[in-house]
Amino acid sequence: ELQLNLEQIEKNNFEHFMLKEIYEQPSAIRDTYRGRLHAEEGIIRMAGVDDNLERFLNAKRILIVACGTSWHAGLVAEYIFEDLARIPVEVEYASEFRYRNPIINSDDVVIAISQSGETADTMAAIKLAKEKGAFVFGVCNVVGSSISRETNAGAYTHAGPEIGVASTKAFTTQITVLTLMALKLAKAKGSISNTDFHMHLQELETIPQKIEVALQENDHIKEVAFKYKDARNCLYLGRGFNFPVALEGALKLKEISYIHAEGYPAAEMKHGPIALIDEEMPVVVIATRKGHYEKVVSNIQEIKSRQGKIIGIVTEGDTSVRDLADYVIEVPDTIESLTPLLTTIPLQLLSYHIAVLLGKNVDQPRNLAKSVTVE
Amino acid sequence: ELQLNLEQIEKNNFEHFMLKEIYEQPSAIRDTYRGRLHAEEGIIRMAGVDDNLERFLNAKRILIVACGTSWHAGLVAEYIFEDLARIPVEVEYASEFRYRNPIINSDDVVIAISQSGETADTMAAIKLAKEKGAFVFGVCNVVGSSISRETNAGAYTHAGPEIGVASTKAFTTQITVLTLMALKLAKAKGSISNTDFHMHLQELETIPQKIEVALQENDHIKEVAFKYKDARNCLYLGRGFNFPVALEGALKLKEISYIHAEGYPAAEMKHGPIALIDEEMPVVVIATRKGHYEKVVSNIQEIKSRQGKIIGIVTEGDTSVRDLADYVIEVPDTIESLTPLLTTIPLQLLSYHIAVLLGKNVDQPRNLAKSVTVE
Repeated sequence: ELQLNLEQIEKNNFEHFMLKEIYEQPSAIRDTYRGRLHAEEGIIRMAGVDDNLERFLNAKRILIVACGTSWHAGLVAEYIFEDLARIPVEVEYASEFRYRNPIINSDDVVIAISQSGETADTMAAIKLAKEKGAFVFGVCNVVGSSISRETNAGAYTHAGPEIGVASTKAFTTQITVLTLMALKLAKAKGSISNTDFHMHLQELETIPQKIEVALQENDHIKEVAFKYKDARNCLYLGRGFNFPVALEGALKLKEISYIHAEGYPAAEMKHGPIALIDEEMPVVVIATRKGHYEKVVSNIQEIKSRQGKIIGIVTEGDTSVRDLADYVIEVPDTIESLTPLLTTIPLQLLSYHIAVLLGKNVDQPRNLAKSVTVE
Repeated sequence: ELQLNLEQIEKNNFEHFMLKEIYEQPSAIRDTYRGRLHAEEGIIRMAGVDDNLERFLNAKRILIVACGTSWHAGLVAEYIFEDLARIPVEVEYASEFRYRNPIINSDDVVIAISQSGETADTMAAIKLAKEKGAFVFGVCNVVGSSISRETNAGAYTHAGPEIGVASTKAFTTQITVLTLMALKLAKAKGSISNTDFHMHLQELETIPQKIEVALQENDHIKEVAFKYKDARNCLYLGRGFNFPVALEGALKLKEISYIHAEGYPAAEMKHGPIALIDEEMPVVVIATRKGHYEKVVSNIQEIKSRQGKIIGIVTEGDTSVRDLADYVIEVPDTIESLTPLLTTIPLQLLSYHIAVLLGKNVDQPRNLAKSVTVE
């Protein structure tokens, strides 16, 4: 009974840890950029990057190794690093990388991402990269974890303890750290204009408040969840920066509701997956006004003409997608590279409510462990 | 009626073009390596590569752009090029690449893969790469197609006309061409030993005959298909060279049977998808004796302990997976990098028979076009 009370206190009146952690994201992101992001002065301070700036600037490419949700954060980072810092990025599943005699050069920078800092496959990938002389940078949440000790340098996400097995605030704080890194390197390389740099910094500082706004859609999202809770399958589509968000949204639904959801880059639909579309298939489409909006709207039209049910994640005030979709969920406007931090929120809530409505054990889904310390 | 007869003749007594094309793979692969592969002399002749050898050898990296099944061939090629020729490869969805301000350097080599040679997104990616000064090499099936004309050089797959919308022989002949290229470059770079090079050449020459053997499992595969035709979902798992084959196997099932199938690198299961596993979920696992066999066997054990139904694609004479799996389908033994050419075959047949048993229009699945000439 004492245990139960303690858990209640830890949950801070939320029904589940996962919901609590979804709501903690504004403060977790603030904690993650605090002391690093100085928007007024136009400075990003990250000791792990500052101390190794030459390694980063001389890198011919950045290799990102991770698993699961962290791998999705890596994919978002690929778009951000390539777009802002103009450094080629290759994202690898740690489990594949470690066993495939990968090409690693001594001037490569390897970024390893892991919430727990104990992921066995990622740890093995780091050891391999170090043996080949690469510089390895860790992005972990747990202070003093194995990966944070094994890497040459790193930057913590300051998300606080994540108890829910399905990762939420770890994901958005990983993206925050990686965005700060990309911006810092872009500035140092001169691949971003001063104006653009300042604009990004100021905008990043507003993200926590915008997530608060996105969270206000919770009741509406619960209604959408009620409508689709009995779906057997679901597709998630996005383009550009939001393609990895689609993958992550699908993973959340898989993990806690056991509904078979799959993410796809929207334009790949016509190369196969569109055959699956019928009136029983809900399709979640990330269609914010940034990022080739018209292309996504045309993808939505294709789905609609095949009787697919459409849930659009849209920018506040959107009308085009609203006219086509069965439901829309709004997020505030922001610059394109930062949209993943906002579009992720409704997808987390959607999965959460569907799982709760189905009576699933949200915080401890079947077959899954919080930290995968075995291969 | 004349039309019907003509179609019958073209189908060569096969019930569908797709089945005919699956069975044509031994000859299509032979036609593709004929005149190029000289196993006895230990030579690979490919004019498009020979004439541009310096470009390839000086490439800091190879970028592969493609869509759908061709994208999967690109992923197989990534493993083969990196393993044999030790050139870093990045595989991109053409639709994502063209819209994301990608990093392309003038010393990059871009390989564009497209059966029809008319894929709009791939064509746009080529134009972008050429504008940035990259050397673009095409791998197409249709002679004189737009992509074959737009690229700086190329190598045709000689698969013959592919009528079935779901690509089969185009995929395996693409892999054949890309394997020849990787071997040729490995030899020129000295990243492969003479013994290993000769062994690969001789083994590649035996692949058509080994596909004949794999095709003999057809009746058995039909039985497996009957057992799983009513599944609503399916997972496909593979590791290393066979991870992309798992993706392609899942795509085939999606395309023609409309069953929601998804491919995953086997070791990623525990980072989320394993939550989906229950007694209603068939899991197709590529578990040939090459390629971290023990790891895959351990993945199979995890699925089994969660009541998943297992269909193993195994090497002739395998016993370990047979003991665990509900069904096994055998393919002949070969060297690891060539296994995709064999493991693909039973997955094509499995999708085909399931679709036929479900009464679907195998050659012209709903919503899909053979050649996607629009974005």
